[in-house]
Amino acid sequence: MFGFSVSATAGAARRGEIETPHGTVRTPAFMPVGTQGTVKALQPGQVRETGTDIVLANTYHLMLRPGAERIAALGGLHAFMRWPHPILTDSGGYQVMSLSELRKVEEGGVTFRSHLDGAMVALSPERAIEIQTLLGADILMQLDECLRLPAPAAEVERAMMLSLRWAERSKRAFEATPQGRALFGIVQGGVDVALRERSARELVGMRFDGYAIGGLAVGEPQAAMFATVEATVPHLPPDRPRYLMGVGEPDDILGAVARGIDMFDCVLPTRAGRHGHAYTRFGKVNLRNARYADDARPLDAESACPAARDYSRAYLHHLVKSNEVLGAVLLSWANVAYYQALMAGIRAAVAAGNFAEFAEATRADLDAGDPTP
Amino acid sequence: MFGFSVSATAGAARRGEIETPHGTVRTPAFMPVGTQGTVKALQPGQVRETGTDIVLANTYHLMLRPGAERIAALGGLHAFMRWPHPILTDSGGYQVMSLSELRKVEEGGVTFRSHLDGAMVALSPERAIEIQTLLGADILMQLDECLRLPAPAAEVERAMMLSLRWAERSKRAFEATPQGRALFGIVQGGVDVALRERSARELVGMRFDGYAIGGLAVGEPQAAMFATVEATVPHLPPDRPRYLMGVGEPDDILGAVARGIDMFDCVLPTRAGRHGHAYTRFGKVNLRNARYADDARPLDAESACPAARDYSRAYLHHLVKSNEVLGAVLLSWANVAYYQALMAGIRAAVAAGNFAEFAEATRADLDAGDPTP
Repeated sequence: MFGFSVSATAGAARRGEIETPHGTVRTPAFMPVGTQGTVKALQPGQVRETGTDIVLANTYHLMLRPGAERIAALGGLHAFMRWPHPILTDSGGYQVMSLSELRKVEEGGVTFRSHLDGAMVALSPERAIEIQTLLGADILMQLDECLRLPAPAAEVERAMMLSLRWAERSKRAFEATPQGRALFGIVQGGVDVALRERSARELVGMRFDGYAIGGLAVGEPQAAMFATVEATVPHLPPDRPRYLMGVGEPDDILGAVARGIDMFDCVLPTRAGRHGHAYTRFGKVNLRNARYADDARPLDAESACPAARDYSRAYLHHLVKSNEVLGAVLLSWANVAYYQALMAGIRAAVAAGNFAEFAEATRADLDAGDPTP
Repeated sequence: MFGFSVSATAGAARRGEIETPHGTVRTPAFMPVGTQGTVKALQPGQVRETGTDIVLANTYHLMLRPGAERIAALGGLHAFMRWPHPILTDSGGYQVMSLSELRKVEEGGVTFRSHLDGAMVALSPERAIEIQTLLGADILMQLDECLRLPAPAAEVERAMMLSLRWAERSKRAFEATPQGRALFGIVQGGVDVALRERSARELVGMRFDGYAIGGLAVGEPQAAMFATVEATVPHLPPDRPRYLMGVGEPDDILGAVARGIDMFDCVLPTRAGRHGHAYTRFGKVNLRNARYADDARPLDAESACPAARDYSRAYLHHLVKSNEVLGAVLLSWANVAYYQALMAGIRAAVAAGNFAEFAEATRADLDAGDPTP
């Protein structure tokens, strides 16, 4: 059954645990993104080895291919992708905005053209819950309307209000599904503090299992994101997990944890890995750069991840330059491992009561950049 | 130090062991191809897990990128690609023929235009030995001239004779390198039995550590390949390993082992894996086919390879259709594992004296095709 408990705090930062039908999630938690039922380029065992407790999967992609009913017939998403641990599914709302060129938002839901085959597909709050239930997610997200920012104030308010009405319908649909899973509401309202507060208050009144802050990490400055988080968190209940969707860079995560966020997801570590970039304690390393051609050092000799610890930068450079699949595999693995090591460090620091010092030292290392060989 | 011993025979088929500076190779052996210093899509640990004793790496690719001198400075190819087991390098001759659009073959060697950056590059028998020594290969191959077949008889003879002169120069250059490694000569002569015999006799007179049959598996019918092998093997010494280059399909391997071949290399298992095809005991499976969309069975429940044993065909189909990297990884892994299971079966059958029965039963399974769900 779903549950959440906080075991330590350091300022607004919290160390906690989420219980789900498929196991425990240590928070603050980073969820690697398994868009199409696979954390790109990685086997589930590798993902687990990095210290990952939970992955995110995309309703939009999976409903179009291979289809939610098909996955259910095959035993659900956990069995399908061989990830027997917690899974959070998004609602599809964000991808409808970002991937579908043609879409029509109405009170009942959204109709959009599939980016795969051009078919028109309908997604309502109720259908989004049905799909996520078919997938077998441990944590479901309500359908919301995501806007591209900046957007006119009236448009931001209209989308926020629609998302609230969809939240209510999502809650009602969710209550008819098997027990034990969790449904999160999503706070919207752009970077308008008053709208965010109103959205949060109304959602809290509906009593969700957790609360996400959506509609950020869409190109706004970090300061605006942090300000919005700061304006929202105080209106969320302390006994529920808080999830900042789509965030972000290591520095974003440090700042958001300091403001009370418990959960994150982001495609950055795997996307960067496929493009030849490595996340390390000393900042990002672009392995396409010729300076690494003769560099016998690993990415990080102290990493617990074989990809970061055992292979030379020269070899990784060669793989990336040669467009070898193994380059994408090793860098994706090293990057997810870096993110999870960061989260483990954050959790230990909050538990030890020295999160501020940890964040400062971590930022100093990131800013220092790659040491000279 | 290099050595070869035969422990059992069944007809012309042989069970043996090759000793190299980096360990033992059980024969008949299949060498997965690590063209650019990576068996495509696989980590070295995965390759090893399949039962692989030795991999092949390509001189042509590695000399152009990242460069043999660079790999030597980084500690050699074994360290560079993290494969501490035996490595055979080819001479570059075959890739010059197949990849370089512009090339000029002269007595001294071959000059060709790099397919990477268009630079003109020279490769002589002596330089091919130098490069393979810099890479640190356990088994080196002489430079030879490979022709596209069919070719005029006079042209086949000219190339065979040139390859013999290059063999002699390769041998001389090799004798000046560190001891313990092995150099193989390459029998050429197209599908002309008299030329093959002459090439074999002259090479044997030069006393190589092993003998390859080159210039086959370039599109000729299987019967022509088998006939050429049959005409060549009797002229090779029984106490040296015999290597049929670039072969092949499982059925080709069975037929060649029956004719006395000890070593094989082929890109098929990894190339097929990247294109959505799986090798199984019951023939090839095209996972793009919609018939697998709802198929909960693994590729082979009895396989020792997790990729073949643990994931459903439905999931593999989904990964392939979605162009996910994990699809290439899992199918390459399953395919190399299939090939190595085939070789293990061959070795056990030769040792038990029932190779003919094993080959017949294996072919019957391959022909039977994928059982109905």
